[in-house]
Amino acid sequence: MTDSSTNMRLKLPIVCFILEIILIILFGVLVEYDHDTDARDFHNMSHHDYENDFYYRYPSFQDVHVMIFIGFGFLMTFLQRYGFSSVGFNFLIAAFSLQWATLMQGFFHGMHGGKIHIGVESMINADFCTGSVLISFGAVLGKTSPIQLLIMAMFEVTLFSVNEYILLSVLGTKDAGGSMTIHTFGAYFGLMVTRVLYRPNLDKSKHRNSSVYHSDLFAMIGTIYLWMFWPSFNSAVTAHGDDQHRTAMNTYYSLAACTMSSYAMSALTAHDGKLDMVHIQNAALAGGVAAGTAGEMMLTPFGSMIVGFLAGIISVLGYKYLTPVLEEKLKIQDTCGVNNLHGMPGILGAIVGAVTAAVATKDVYGEGLHDVFPLVAEGKREASVQGGIQAVSLAVTLGIALIGGLIVGFILKLPVFGAPPDTICFEDNIYWEVTCTEDVHLKRKYAIFCYSGVRVELNKSFYFPFPFQ
Amino acid sequence: MTDSSTNMRLKLPIVCFILEIILIILFGVLVEYDHDTDARDFHNMSHHDYENDFYYRYPSFQDVHVMIFIGFGFLMTFLQRYGFSSVGFNFLIAAFSLQWATLMQGFFHGMHGGKIHIGVESMINADFCTGSVLISFGAVLGKTSPIQLLIMAMFEVTLFSVNEYILLSVLGTKDAGGSMTIHTFGAYFGLMVTRVLYRPNLDKSKHRNSSVYHSDLFAMIGTIYLWMFWPSFNSAVTAHGDDQHRTAMNTYYSLAACTMSSYAMSALTAHDGKLDMVHIQNAALAGGVAAGTAGEMMLTPFGSMIVGFLAGIISVLGYKYLTPVLEEKLKIQDTCGVNNLHGMPGILGAIVGAVTAAVATKDVYGEGLHDVFPLVAEGKREASVQGGIQAVSLAVTLGIALIGGLIVGFILKLPVFGAPPDTICFEDNIYWEVTCTEDVHLKRKYAIFCYSGVRVELNKSFYFPFPFQ
Amino acid sequence: MTDSSTNMRLKLPIVCFILEIILIILFGVLVEYDHDTDARDFHNMSHHDYENDFYYRYPSFQDVHVMIFIGFGFLMTFLQRYGFSSVGFNFLIAAFSLQWATLMQGFFHGMHGGKIHIGVESMINADFCTGSVLISFGAVLGKTSPIQLLIMAMFEVTLFSVNEYILLSVLGTKDAGGSMTIHTFGAYFGLMVTRVLYRPNLDKSKHRNSSVYHSDLFAMIGTIYLWMFWPSFNSAVTAHGDDQHRTAMNTYYSLAACTMSSYAMSALTAHDGKLDMVHIQNAALAGGVAAGTAGEMMLTPFGSMIVGFLAGIISVLGYKYLTPVLEEKLKIQDTCGVNNLHGMPGILGAIVGAVTAAVATKDVYGEGLHDVFPLVAEGKREASVQGGIQAVSLAVTLGIALIGGLIVGFILKLPVFGAPPDTICFEDNIYWEVTCTEDVHLKRKYAIFCYSGVRVELNKSFYFPFPFQ
Repeated sequence: MTDSSTNMRLKLPIVCFILEIILIILFGVLVEYDHDTDARDFHNMSHHDYENDFYYRYPSFQDVHVMIFIGFGFLMTFLQRYGFSSVGFNFLIAAFSLQWATLMQGFFHGMHGGKIHIGVESMINADFCTGSVLISFGAVLGKTSPIQLLIMAMFEVTLFSVNEYILLSVLGTKDAGGSMTIHTFGAYFGLMVTRVLYRPNLDKSKHRNSSVYHSDLFAMIGTIYLWMFWPSFNSAVTAHGDDQHRTAMNTYYSLAACTMSSYAMSALTAHDGKLDMVHIQNAALAGGVAAGTAGEMMLTPFGSMIVGFLAGIISVLGYKYLTPVLEEKLKIQDTCGVNNLHGMPGILGAIVGAVTAAVATKDVYGEGLHDVFPLVAEGKREASVQGGIQAVSLAVTLGIALIGGLIVGFILKLPVFGAPPDTICFEDNIYWEVTCTEDVHLKRKYAIFCYSGVRVELNKSFYFPFPFQ
Repeated sequence: MTDSSTNMRLKLPIVCFILEIILIILFGVLVEYDHDTDARDFHNMSHHDYENDFYYRYPSFQDVHVMIFIGFGFLMTFLQRYGFSSVGFNFLIAAFSLQWATLMQGFFHGMHGGKIHIGVESMINADFCTGSVLISFGAVLGKTSPIQLLIMAMFEVTLFSVNEYILLSVLGTKDAGGSMTIHTFGAYFGLMVTRVLYRPNLDKSKHRNSSVYHSDLFAMIGTIYLWMFWPSFNSAVTAHGDDQHRTAMNTYYSLAACTMSSYAMSALTAHDGKLDMVHIQNAALAGGVAAGTAGEMMLTPFGSMIVGFLAGIISVLGYKYLTPVLEEKLKIQDTCGVNNLHGMPGILGAIVGAVTAAVATKDVYGEGLHDVFPLVAEGKREASVQGGIQAVSLAVTLGIALIGGLIVGFILKLPVFGAPPDTICFEDNIYWEVTCTEDVHLKRKYAIFCYSGVRVELNKSFYFPFPFQ
Repeated sequence: MTDSSTNMRLKLPIVCFILEIILIILFGVLVEYDHDTDARDFHNMSHHDYENDFYYRYPSFQDVHVMIFIGFGFLMTFLQRYGFSSVGFNFLIAAFSLQWATLMQGFFHGMHGGKIHIGVESMINADFCTGSVLISFGAVLGKTSPIQLLIMAMFEVTLFSVNEYILLSVLGTKDAGGSMTIHTFGAYFGLMVTRVLYRPNLDKSKHRNSSVYHSDLFAMIGTIYLWMFWPSFNSAVTAHGDDQHRTAMNTYYSLAACTMSSYAMSALTAHDGKLDMVHIQNAALAGGVAAGTAGEMMLTPFGSMIVGFLAGIISVLGYKYLTPVLEEKLKIQDTCGVNNLHGMPGILGAIVGAVTAAVATKDVYGEGLHDVFPLVAEGKREASVQGGIQAVSLAVTLGIALIGGLIVGFILKLPVFGAPPDTICFEDNIYWEVTCTEDVHLKRKYAIFCYSGVRVELNKSFYFPFPFQ
């Protein structure tokens, strides 16, 4: 079932070892503990142990961490024969990306005497960047080798960091939960990559590009974890105090409203009124994406619910009507429908953020304006200008994502990376030892077949006693 | 397999949209950020960002959130053909209930100038109320349409809030972990609803009302998460400091002892000494329920262990001997056995709470008495009176739950809500797109059948080579 | 399928009840709330509620708790027919062990006026000790009765506490994440037990000693949770402030590097370059084990990555080449390969800890030296001596583990404990009610068979319409 080009015996170890050794060397040269993780530095000043940022960020970090590894990993296990790869490649590229992101983000976010200082906040940011790579992974799921994914991650982390630097540091954009930097970027980067990697004969693997009962239940583990911890995601790197608190709460209500509209739209768009697991697994999360920019602002719970409500509707409509069009007309084969979960809701979130920023007033935010819009609070920028900058940031993000995805897509086309042939996409067996395959083996006295990874043996004696024999 | 009455194409969207739009309007009119989530208010006073209640409640909130969505959701996936509905309807009614509960509890817990103020503590309380609805869901699992569940949730959240108001605000009852307000209320409300909805011909769906191997493993995910995070549940809204700390620890030891007695009783009550997954999945959790009221008191680890030990015994005995009697004699079809997990252990917890309250002394609690029994500490009430009030509260809870369940049960009988027919209960296919159904399709050259949601295709060529052909 | 000796109907209840009643009595006599959980004590002093240790340890505790119950429990569900036992026995012996460990550790860690004082830190330590027992469980997985496991847990917790006391209290060893006390101890204790319990005819159960597709996905839930929360594990009981922060971060990078090398080695050691789930599920975690001792030290992220990188390589090599040798030559049947995940990486971690301790200087640690190496900071011990003591501690741990395992192994050989016969190892059905068994039942008109726990019924009508009839 495998040919030599997809054999990973030498390729994967070489790529992993080279990447990791480079990472270790760069960490040795460039990376240092920050003030709150360094034994000498932290004890140099007179503050209480309890003031260490660990206690105010680490629980959020762990929730984000669960979203990255369990949430994204299991969300993609919906495919009947691609569970090992979904969780396993998610695991591999996330482990790589978070190390590489530490370096790239550290480089762009400002060095300290030639050194990158790291602590829990940089860990959260590294996980965020990793999230963006995993969104792109969703677009190409089932059609790429682990080496292609590592190469994609390497470039995407770099471009993510450039875009993030332009938005947060150059333009002074606010995007704590990453509607733009994470979701819009990851989605359109991935969509462009999958466009370039278009496979005209992918329908030869069509029978595997669907779920079975248990694989949908595994996927729901991913969905529910993403849904539950999204409030932590959006609030993980906002300012301390009311900001984190408010962001988490806005996201909570946005998601709840989104779930209601997702269920409604899923039933409404089905001819027999039956709910579709694809919508529930994905669209119900769009409310988290759409609250990514404005979540830290004074969006009000009421406003958050409207945003989530709309996000759910847009997302289900996208899965139902837009995805087939994108595939047929634009040749974009988007396995997980990341355009519907991250792309369009990310754009919605960016627009909501721009509008909410534009109407921000000292009257509403009080002294808290310094936390949310420091440039506006300091009088360096009008709120309306901040709103305009937010809108420009969306355009910048889309531009970098699409151009980046285009270039990286062509790089990934190199045959040396071992992509699976069109006939064996969405199939674990090509890169993983699997207990049994879909092949039917017919022996003299018994038959062995395999369905959904379960090996079934039927032997002769099983049939003989039947009345019809 | 579906008929027109169970078709949700218009009904479900209409109900979801109407409910959500009402919620959004009421939130717009009534709900405001509280002091710790409002940018202006929080910055108005001179306190450190780190004093925001977010840091002292949010980790508990997230644990509770996991219990509501993963814990309850997956605990109910034990049914072989009802996994989508268990997790999916759990998700839907929880998303609705937490919004509605925010309003109802906010209304009863005291408005601020005509507004409901919300923050992390109200989020925990909303999740608690949702938990009560999900307990009732367990009683009617497999026999109700999603619309019935939403209607039930709407009424139950309202009645829950009334009961909670009477207990906590009028009577001054202590019930931090909700042995009464959450577990007893949810269980007996649900049992009464399922009694009213009694289906004499339910045995036509009997073959689906059981587990398969993998569905039991999915259910164990729910069990273990509920078990692990129950200490956070019981301690989530107690007073800060030693109270939260002590409540979590009492619950931890109660659960550990309960697990031991559950395993012992499960083996003891089986004729061949084999452990029964039903007991392990459910009875081992009764120790958390039973520590819900007294957990915050000076119950001592020793006392907690005795309570948990007894709860496990009662719960297994209930599953083994009481549930069949309830079904046959009282016509109460309790799918998940909520009487054994939440009902009887909830009553046990209420009684333990009453006794523990009655013997509380200043000598034992010191100044901490103000946190646990403020009325006793202020001399407004004797400890023995507090104990009596606790006992009265149990009776009030049972009364409201039973009468409420009776009325709501009759409302849910309206045929317009699209309940499944007796022959197709415990079956996802009626409300969900399922890859394959249990029907056997016999084609000219091959057969398709489906077991446990896995579609199996056997074609002619598979049989021909067999020796017996 | 069961014979009388494995029937647990009386044995298991008797053992559970006796153990739990002893625990309850000892708790009643010996255990008290500590300062931070006691209502009177905590309110006796003038400190803020927010200074309660609950807020600085409980989130870590919950992460550790998830590792113990979900992590270890599901990691072992990889076996096709042993999922109930993996999660279920894990649950039982953990619930017992954490209570027993509270007493044993409390006894050795110092009594207060004849009483053991408990709070969140003792809860973490009890979970740690439990982790050690679960590691040993991994070595004997599938070959022991629940009673054997409880007896093993009882002795192992006791010996663990003795060893921990010698290391931490007598020798002044540093081992916050337990490379020695937890992993090395648990692994070699378990390996010695399984050596003594050697089954020459175990290959009669060989067909069950492997995974199926879905069981590997369940196991990945365990793996990913262990991986994500290992930073919390290693940092859970270090000093507050920079120490916890640094330990978590070191572990995070060690694990990321370990994942990269595990994937590389898994592909490299397979003849067809396919990744092996056994390696991914286990070796990718070795980086957490290996950072258990030095994680709290100034290991630097760079150093942590090297340690993790090596741990992944060692672990995969162990699974591939050492495990078969141990089984064939040394008669050590190590079901989960705990030597590769906990044993060798634990030794690596101990050595790294010894070296890192030996080179510690005031210049690097500043005043933080008091937290990490108090004896060195106070001038009572040279850093090089501390390093030597660390190395001696490894030897002590190995000695106690091996001798203890030897003795306990012989105790467990008593036939009264109801071990499964060689032919029915790795099989849930012997101790659990399972919906269906592997037996094929042939009835007059239909056949029932069962694969992977799913009961399949094929009836006559299913075959008749086939063309070949």
